[in-house]
Amino acid sequence: VEILSGVFEGRTTGAPISLIVFNTNQQSKDYDEIAKLWRPGHADYTYDMKYGFRDYRGGGRSSARETTARVAAGAVAKKILGMLNVDIMAYTKSIGPVTIDMANFDRDQIYKNFLTMPDASKVAEAEAYLTKVKDAGDSAGGVIECVVNNCPVGLGEPVFDKLDGLLAKAIMSLGAMKGIEFGSGSDVTTRTGSENNDFFTYVDGELSKETNHAGGTLGGLSDGSQIFMRVYVKPTPSVHTTQRTVTKDGRNVDVNIEGRHDPIIVPRAVIVIEAMVALTLVDMLLANMSSKLSNVMKVYQT
Amino acid sequence: VEILSGVFEGRTTGAPISLIVFNTNQQSKDYDEIAKLWRPGHADYTYDMKYGFRDYRGGGRSSARETTARVAAGAVAKKILGMLNVDIMAYTKSIGPVTIDMANFDRDQIYKNFLTMPDASKVAEAEAYLTKVKDAGDSAGGVIECVVNNCPVGLGEPVFDKLDGLLAKAIMSLGAMKGIEFGSGSDVTTRTGSENNDFFTYVDGELSKETNHAGGTLGGLSDGSQIFMRVYVKPTPSVHTTQRTVTKDGRNVDVNIEGRHDPIIVPRAVIVIEAMVALTLVDMLLANMSSKLSNVMKVYQT
Amino acid sequence: VEILSGVFEGRTTGAPISLIVFNTNQQSKDYDEIAKLWRPGHADYTYDMKYGFRDYRGGGRSSARETTARVAAGAVAKKILGMLNVDIMAYTKSIGPVTIDMANFDRDQIYKNFLTMPDASKVAEAEAYLTKVKDAGDSAGGVIECVVNNCPVGLGEPVFDKLDGLLAKAIMSLGAMKGIEFGSGSDVTTRTGSENNDFFTYVDGELSKETNHAGGTLGGLSDGSQIFMRVYVKPTPSVHTTQRTVTKDGRNVDVNIEGRHDPIIVPRAVIVIEAMVALTLVDMLLANMSSKLSNVMKVYQT
Amino acid sequence: VEILSGVFEGRTTGAPISLIVFNTNQQSKDYDEIAKLWRPGHADYTYDMKYGFRDYRGGGRSSARETTARVAAGAVAKKILGMLNVDIMAYTKSIGPVTIDMANFDRDQIYKNFLTMPDASKVAEAEAYLTKVKDAGDSAGGVIECVVNNCPVGLGEPVFDKLDGLLAKAIMSLGAMKGIEFGSGSDVTTRTGSENNDFFTYVDGELSKETNHAGGTLGGLSDGSQIFMRVYVKPTPSVHTTQRTVTKDGRNVDVNIEGRHDPIIVPRAVIVIEAMVALTLVDMLLANMSSKLSNVMKVYQT
Repeated sequence: VEILSGVFEGRTTGAPISLIVFNTNQQSKDYDEIAKLWRPGHADYTYDMKYGFRDYRGGGRSSARETTARVAAGAVAKKILGMLNVDIMAYTKSIGPVTIDMANFDRDQIYKNFLTMPDASKVAEAEAYLTKVKDAGDSAGGVIECVVNNCPVGLGEPVFDKLDGLLAKAIMSLGAMKGIEFGSGSDVTTRTGSENNDFFTYVDGELSKETNHAGGTLGGLSDGSQIFMRVYVKPTPSVHTTQRTVTKDGRNVDVNIEGRHDPIIVPRAVIVIEAMVALTLVDMLLANMSSKLSNVMKVYQT
Repeated sequence: VEILSGVFEGRTTGAPISLIVFNTNQQSKDYDEIAKLWRPGHADYTYDMKYGFRDYRGGGRSSARETTARVAAGAVAKKILGMLNVDIMAYTKSIGPVTIDMANFDRDQIYKNFLTMPDASKVAEAEAYLTKVKDAGDSAGGVIECVVNNCPVGLGEPVFDKLDGLLAKAIMSLGAMKGIEFGSGSDVTTRTGSENNDFFTYVDGELSKETNHAGGTLGGLSDGSQIFMRVYVKPTPSVHTTQRTVTKDGRNVDVNIEGRHDPIIVPRAVIVIEAMVALTLVDMLLANMSSKLSNVMKVYQT
Repeated sequence: VEILSGVFEGRTTGAPISLIVFNTNQQSKDYDEIAKLWRPGHADYTYDMKYGFRDYRGGGRSSARETTARVAAGAVAKKILGMLNVDIMAYTKSIGPVTIDMANFDRDQIYKNFLTMPDASKVAEAEAYLTKVKDAGDSAGGVIECVVNNCPVGLGEPVFDKLDGLLAKAIMSLGAMKGIEFGSGSDVTTRTGSENNDFFTYVDGELSKETNHAGGTLGGLSDGSQIFMRVYVKPTPSVHTTQRTVTKDGRNVDVNIEGRHDPIIVPRAVIVIEAMVALTLVDMLLANMSSKLSNVMKVYQT
Repeated sequence: VEILSGVFEGRTTGAPISLIVFNTNQQSKDYDEIAKLWRPGHADYTYDMKYGFRDYRGGGRSSARETTARVAAGAVAKKILGMLNVDIMAYTKSIGPVTIDMANFDRDQIYKNFLTMPDASKVAEAEAYLTKVKDAGDSAGGVIECVVNNCPVGLGEPVFDKLDGLLAKAIMSLGAMKGIEFGSGSDVTTRTGSENNDFFTYVDGELSKETNHAGGTLGGLSDGSQIFMRVYVKPTPSVHTTQRTVTKDGRNVDVNIEGRHDPIIVPRAVIVIEAMVALTLVDMLLANMSSKLSNVMKVYQT
């Protein structure tokens, strides 16, 4: 990453921080075939329809490469959150059918294996599954979880910009994400209200909740407890198996897509999800500054 | 609903359409106790923290009453979508543990029973469950599904404003929604890419997809196939059972909340979800008008 | 003005403050003729072209009645600014050819005469001019000046949202405003840089500027000195003289427009300009809260 | 200018068009003195106050260099407007006391002299004035006019985003602009309504206005006639004369600022004003596409 603007003598100046990453890993190859057809599971067709034209070299903006910029910007957001001790952690919950055992959860493991799994005991099994899938020219999906600790109370806005709504949008704005849940997620649907409500309690004068089924928000505002999200990620659409598709000029064809392909998106998405959560929280942190006139006074009165 | 502005001689004038609904069903009651404590599962605590103050009569903006305005505005959005034959349908998929049988799906049933269930054979069972829960002073959750047919291709914007991201935000901006999935949702995580990709095919010169695991979007843009969403709804937090909570002045107390309470949110949320989807689609429909210069020419050249 | 929402027990709740003013002074009259033609100097033609349709009863949103809402909202903004001792004052500088003598400036006079002139010695002359114009079925224009004292330093954003740009937009968003100047305005064009620059100086340890040709901003940010604006207002387009215009069906006609008309906009616009300035300053005051991380810390660290 | 994204095979892809201009003309010099004081007429002081810190090398974002990006983006906007035959022309009206004679107006002259004056007969006089000022280490101001021909009817939005308001903001968002007028500008203040109204008339079946005192808008919407703006530009604040100012540590000092300085902003601002007008018109052109449902139908119905 190169910083083009906004930083001077080690400090931000208030000007936009412009970060640039040049793609040095481009491979010149023959795009003739790909230009003429729409790959299944990709955005080729929708881009052509929306814009009347597309950049067929690697997918343009619909490529996961686009998320590089999000991670770079997220790093800045994390610095700001760090000043308030807000802590964001995402990790791989499962790779295909292989799910971690929460009893073995060890945060230190996350970046020690390339699958970003916090349970060292499951890594070998997940790797074996992935190798098998990859050898078949195929790809795998999985689950990512993300938690935020020590988030200030009151972030989010009460109607359309609820914090969970904004986080859902931020994460679903990443390609390949097919679902998101907060707190107990789909489990809430078979509970009763008295089972699902999180009771407040003062413990040694400190407010807390006996449970956290809500996943850290109440009425769309952060409530100070842990924010918990679970995200469902589809398998990489780029596979080497023979697929049926169509050409732009109206023919049904079989296609074998060549080239490098990641057999799984999950581990790479872990850091991107952290970035999107960080960016969303900083936005809301700044927006929330003016929620009380007493805050306005704190800033302007000297 | 009363229309205060924006309509004249049966047509819109371009001015904002102002719709007002007066709450004629307010009950004067003693709010003294509720003003002093924070109800579990409600936004009392977070509102007090964010704004330093709250309107304790019925929850203010955190009340589901707020969604009335969304339904009214959604009715206008649906009129516009109707001109393009875009069709939105939401329905109750399950009430607590009672799930409809999709084999019995009958759209005509949805608004014939107060549970908005499209499977008449399950209504009695769901009602029995709900009566039991209600008699215990408790409440129930459930699942809502929503589909959009005949949506134009290309709605949504490719990076941060992906259509699925915007729909997720719109729906998660409703209280009580704890999760949302598109297409196959969490099922994608154990599939391979070759299983999950939707193959394109021309049938009689008409483009279609052999499957629709994606749920109607590709790269965040509508692809012309059915948009499919599943939403997980929590049980109403207002229950009559004894709950533990705290007062604003720092005491742990037991509380029994009196008054009218709906034992379930699901059926009332069905129409609200349709409204939020309609509003989102109209926004994107208008935004998409300028995606091609040829569209600009269509509008301005005579 | 009736307050429909956002205020409870004398305090704002954080919910939108909804203010409503019902038009109780509507006169039923025959709009048949006015509906068929486009009045000169009014927005009839442009509204018909833009929307394909217009509300011909009194001009709809293009009527000055629309500014009532701005004044009501501006009153709230002024309350917030008052807490920081920011003081906004607008007044009539001239009515047609009659200009006040700044040597006689007396703020207390502004709301003591219906022309909002701060120079009591000129009121009779201005009134005489206005009576003459009105008796001829005609109307008059004039000049308004507006100053802001004690504005915090740093309001406005450095590129597209410069404070002078935002104030210009806010004021030019009022009908009938044809020009705006800041500080020395058009006089700067014949000065040299050394004549026009405002030199900084510390007087008794307090920073000030020797002059204020800039009118209170530097680089688009408030500099703490007096913000000074001059606004040029056109004569009311509604006159009773015979005018040439056209009908929607393509005929050239002479028209005599009947009904009540104000012969001058200026005195009524004085309070509206104050309101728009107040709203702009409050927006920027809130936006500016996050200009420094030290401000973020002031709000969140306890 | 280098294009980093958004264009492929000579066409735009719908992705943001990223244009970059590297500053190859930077001079390493001793900024020690300038870093310690606030220059008169510059944004040094307000930036330091707003952000607690500034980039003192050339002024950072408060430098006119920032407008390079506006001109580059404006070139794209002009291409779009050109497809609809919308024509924007700005020019120097005066340099200090030297004003062009409109009787000699010749558009071809504008870019034939470095003062962008459309009257060849005044160039020598203006140059002589400028040389005198420059030799004295001083600088000059002036007036720019800008016209738009063939603008579609209906651009702008009726309340806060009136076209004249948006153009005023766009132009006042440039450093050194101290006033802006539309149409007859300040002259309207001494006219009566019957003198100032522009009468509509059909000539050979074509709608026109007998006069254009309004300067091309009615009710904040373009009316199809020529849009006319006049802008007042201050002299360059960077002068070589001795000036009084203060240091950040509280001392009153005399300062002589060295280095390259343009003795006039006007001719360089001409092209920047055209760019800002073009960007504003394209924004409104796209926004206006959805003003009528019949336009929506034109785009979506096939």
